[in-house]
Amino acid sequence: MTKIIDPYGSELVSDYGKIVKDFGLEIFNKNIFPNPNAIMRRGVVFAGRDMQIIAKCIKEKKPFYALTGIMPTNQEIHLGTKLVVENLKFFQQLGAKTYILVADLEAQAARGVSLEEGRKRALNFHIPAYIALGLDPKKTIFYFQSENKEVMHFAYEAAKKITLNEFKAIYGSADPGRIMSAVTQVGDILYPQFKERMPGIIPVGIDQDPHIRLTRDVVSRMKSKKFFSPGSIYHKYTPSLDGSIKMSKSKPESCITIPEDEKSVKKKIMRALSGGRTTLEEHRRLGAEVEKCMVFELLKQHLVEDDKELDKIYEEYKSGRMSAGEIKQLASEKMMVFMKDFNKKLEKAKKQVDKLNFVEF
Amino acid sequence: MTKIIDPYGSELVSDYGKIVKDFGLEIFNKNIFPNPNAIMRRGVVFAGRDMQIIAKCIKEKKPFYALTGIMPTNQEIHLGTKLVVENLKFFQQLGAKTYILVADLEAQAARGVSLEEGRKRALNFHIPAYIALGLDPKKTIFYFQSENKEVMHFAYEAAKKITLNEFKAIYGSADPGRIMSAVTQVGDILYPQFKERMPGIIPVGIDQDPHIRLTRDVVSRMKSKKFFSPGSIYHKYTPSLDGSIKMSKSKPESCITIPEDEKSVKKKIMRALSGGRTTLEEHRRLGAEVEKCMVFELLKQHLVEDDKELDKIYEEYKSGRMSAGEIKQLASEKMMVFMKDFNKKLEKAKKQVDKLNFVEF
Repeated sequence: MTKIIDPYGSELVSDYGKIVKDFGLEIFNKNIFPNPNAIMRRGVVFAGRDMQIIAKCIKEKKPFYALTGIMPTNQEIHLGTKLVVENLKFFQQLGAKTYILVADLEAQAARGVSLEEGRKRALNFHIPAYIALGLDPKKTIFYFQSENKEVMHFAYEAAKKITLNEFKAIYGSADPGRIMSAVTQVGDILYPQFKERMPGIIPVGIDQDPHIRLTRDVVSRMKSKKFFSPGSIYHKYTPSLDGSIKMSKSKPESCITIPEDEKSVKKKIMRALSGGRTTLEEHRRLGAEVEKCMVFELLKQHLVEDDKELDKIYEEYKSGRMSAGEIKQLASEKMMVFMKDFNKKLEKAKKQVDKLNFVEF
Repeated sequence: MTKIIDPYGSELVSDYGKIVKDFGLEIFNKNIFPNPNAIMRRGVVFAGRDMQIIAKCIKEKKPFYALTGIMPTNQEIHLGTKLVVENLKFFQQLGAKTYILVADLEAQAARGVSLEEGRKRALNFHIPAYIALGLDPKKTIFYFQSENKEVMHFAYEAAKKITLNEFKAIYGSADPGRIMSAVTQVGDILYPQFKERMPGIIPVGIDQDPHIRLTRDVVSRMKSKKFFSPGSIYHKYTPSLDGSIKMSKSKPESCITIPEDEKSVKKKIMRALSGGRTTLEEHRRLGAEVEKCMVFELLKQHLVEDDKELDKIYEEYKSGRMSAGEIKQLASEKMMVFMKDFNKKLEKAKKQVDKLNFVEF
């Protein structure tokens, strides 16, 4: 089995190894890009496609882009989304032309959010939230999917390049709505290249890989258009607080959203699956089962930036000197600080919304 | 078997009867609308959907619409397309709000005609050609599919309302490109109702019925939007000059295009399958087999407006007094007159293009 580099171990490693193999991904090498961010250093980022091409662009200061989409549904974002923003921010700081598209068409079709409402939510929450998470608004280009005729036109052409069976092979199923969404996303992913062909990298959770594969297939069938196949970089899921593979809103008691109020978050963390032993005595003697601990996972993925600090927590916990109660207390406090900081930055970012670089169509 | 009213008979009747039954169409009653046009009076128009609702609108002077699309590919139109224009014109004269959309997106995706080129062809040929065929440009609203964001947005919603299996049941197959085109056409068909709900009628060849059915299915699943299901009216194909069911560009020697030069048309008509007997003597004695004669079909569908004149030709030919050579000569002459008239009107219409009512988006 393919080995995934994860310095702190995780019971989920084996599944990600299978994904890498099944999807034909390249394993992420934490030295490929200069100054890797925390999730890259810690094996949360585990794979990608065409990363070498992006590394070359960075090294030679050649143009490349990074892109992500916002689905303006609820007035909150999933904690896992923070990982996408971390990577987007990372490439932005390394010079990527950075694009954020608001998938308002998709939100309307999939969730019944009207275009007007989607627009409002994106401007009043989602975009400011991404800025609050560290994206530089001055260096980011935004657009609304519903306004981008070029993308819609391209979606039409892309659709003609794929067969139903290929679609099914990539997505598992092929309902008309899904097909429309997918070919539009192909257009979105390539949009930064419409005016200028250049490599790009799309930071995504592994569940979004079908869009990357579909786009790469379409590009390979439009050779004369000379698009660069989009590169990608994948992070693991933020696991559910109950220990299952992916944090999900379908289990709200095990899912943290941004923002979320102090009391609710604290309660969830206190009830989370930890690495603590049955008794404190046993815990002191055997040490924590860190690889099973969802609280440590929170610290690793989201709450501790400094590696030395994380190492220290790991040592204390693994050795049994730090109890499950204590690590939960620590994570709660750090989460409080994060939420407070986020809310402050969010309010500030909301005031900048009228100065954003929206593409005019 | 369902009986189709066709006063001049046709070997193709039985097939159309089957279509009516299989698709659940209403048989066209030539007295349903006031002052039926020639193809309605002669059984070329043979079926429809929700025609009673349109008849009521006409009678009560309530708003309704008629709509067709132009695919701006070649710089010529198929003779069969004239039948669509006849019916569109008919409803326009009875007060229908009349829409013509230029399916430039479809032309790009299906035939590789760029949007710019499609636009040029539509303005320089297709739209003027429709005007030359009798459409009133002052009473017609035009738009380009590629510019109509509302239609594209609606296509997205429509796609979510249908399953892949339903799509396959309607269209026989379901490639992604076909799905995109079809759901966009659903948007086009309903577009006149976006601002004002009203009944509409779509004149089409029977091969276009899947779009009508799909649109009606989508409407029935968006009850809260209160769209009227589109009505439709179907004409038979203009048969190929060699006697097969549909005139097609794949057999150019049996297909007449508008415009086409005198020499070429004459040659094709002279070689067409006629109702003439093996010898002139036999022809005089037995009379022509009119129901097998593609030349008479041309006169009936396209070249003779006056019923009495057509009746007379029918009598002369059927009785054997008019020979196959003579009916071919007659059809050739009438076709020459038609083409000359068309070309004259086309040149005139080209000059009106900058005054058309294009929807501004």
